[in-house]
Amino acid sequence: MLKELWQRRLALVEKALLEELREDDALNAKLSDAMKYSLMAGGKRLRPVLLMAAADAVGANGDDFVTTGAAIEMIHTYSLIHDDLPAMDNDDYRRGKLTNHKVYGDGIAILAGDGLLTLAFEVMLRQKNASAEKLTQVVKEMSIAAGPNGMVGGQAIDLLSEGKSISMEELKEMHMGKTGALFRAAIRSGAILGGANQKQLDALTLYAEKFGLAFQITDDILDVEGDERDLGKPIGSDAKNQKSTYVTLTSLEEAKKLAVQTVDEAVTALDDFGEEAEFLRELATYLIARNS
Amino acid sequence: MLKELWQRRLALVEKALLEELREDDALNAKLSDAMKYSLMAGGKRLRPVLLMAAADAVGANGDDFVTTGAAIEMIHTYSLIHDDLPAMDNDDYRRGKLTNHKVYGDGIAILAGDGLLTLAFEVMLRQKNASAEKLTQVVKEMSIAAGPNGMVGGQAIDLLSEGKSISMEELKEMHMGKTGALFRAAIRSGAILGGANQKQLDALTLYAEKFGLAFQITDDILDVEGDERDLGKPIGSDAKNQKSTYVTLTSLEEAKKLAVQTVDEAVTALDDFGEEAEFLRELATYLIARNS
Repeated sequence: MLKELWQRRLALVEKALLEELREDDALNAKLSDAMKYSLMAGGKRLRPVLLMAAADAVGANGDDFVTTGAAIEMIHTYSLIHDDLPAMDNDDYRRGKLTNHKVYGDGIAILAGDGLLTLAFEVMLRQKNASAEKLTQVVKEMSIAAGPNGMVGGQAIDLLSEGKSISMEELKEMHMGKTGALFRAAIRSGAILGGANQKQLDALTLYAEKFGLAFQITDDILDVEGDERDLGKPIGSDAKNQKSTYVTLTSLEEAKKLAVQTVDEAVTALDDFGEEAEFLRELATYLIARNS
Repeated sequence: MLKELWQRRLALVEKALLEELREDDALNAKLSDAMKYSLMAGGKRLRPVLLMAAADAVGANGDDFVTTGAAIEMIHTYSLIHDDLPAMDNDDYRRGKLTNHKVYGDGIAILAGDGLLTLAFEVMLRQKNASAEKLTQVVKEMSIAAGPNGMVGGQAIDLLSEGKSISMEELKEMHMGKTGALFRAAIRSGAILGGANQKQLDALTLYAEKFGLAFQITDDILDVEGDERDLGKPIGSDAKNQKSTYVTLTSLEEAKKLAVQTVDEAVTALDDFGEEAEFLRELATYLIARNS
């Protein structure tokens, strides 16, 4: 079920991204190209897929909310473009392709990121089958998750802690901001759009938090023992950049144990859901076995 | 009336900015400092003041919408921070103070801009006395105005046309994006929040477009014959950077004539409004005589 539904929805997301981007003729063609270059560079489309699966879990049809899925993918893509800049992580490659600023220059790359972030909020409001009340809730979830208390805050901690060793507590806070917050917003937004009640929303929020943590731990593990061809980026970059990770702060073995335990907790959070949450359960389990 | 109301509302805006920023404890203190540094660096707070005046013009009390005013000032401030970066205009000073990246470094400056833009959307939703329908309209106005078809698009044109001479048509499109769109969103958002009918909204939109154009023309004039102490930045920077402006594409005299004519058109757009639009009329007229 996992692979088929994921593939089918991945295609829906690609289509929605092209539609929502095309609808928006940027004032400048090079800016438009730069936005499209990174947005359509592939990827697992994990955040939109999570958003749609959360809507399924509360009895709606996730397909109906692909527009909001496209919006969150735009936020994710903007964060990658800015992350890769020389003033930040200074990466030349991403998913096996040159990074945005290597192709378009730093100035346009900054603007392409700014443009995608801003466009994302416009795209959220294009979501059909959603009341104004729900739309404002989604905008709130996304802006809090992506802002200084979330993704941007986590990125700042990451930037400022380069070459320093940080505690497990600080590492968790950084990742809760840098990647966890947007996973959480994806799942909560899907649940809200799908009509979740408070109990369902709480359970899915717990799932999201565990999912985000497990995702980060396996990311750290893959940076040690992943395959460069599968990942599309060099391994060992954390060690090279002297970054604290779940592996360096514990051990490879301990990190693997923690990942398994965290996935268990994610799955347990869904105990009150039936078949309609099966995708989310499978996805969490798949995390442990993924190679990219 | 102009000066008193402006001063009073400027104080309201400063207070709202501090409140909305403080409410948001960024994950990282340095990021928080960087955001505050640029946000509280003074300025005319023209966009919030326009927003509030547009609400007045349709019979509401502009004071009630200072929260949305604070949000648009955050968007404006983010654009200045990113504009000043070495990869963009590479400016060391802004309003007589070191620019954000000169104090905090390029990486944190990028994130401070990202943080303010994202926070702005959260702050819009904190606006009281506004239905969910109105809030979604405001988010839509702001995201379109600040996005690739508006401010970010204009900035891209600006960046890519450095050292090139551009046509009057291209110059207008660039400024409509770079500064005009956000003025337009300020006035339309204030009108929407204040309960404008369609005819009022159309008239205020026309005012906004003329206002934006007149603002840019006087900006270009000030870069030629302004006073560095009043402006808080060096004059002659357009000439130095070989930028096309309303002055270089016509003449100082022609640009002044065009400014007067455009302000006339802005004021005429308000013919059907009474006393409650007097501030907007005075503000447009003041534009011609401003020295900073």
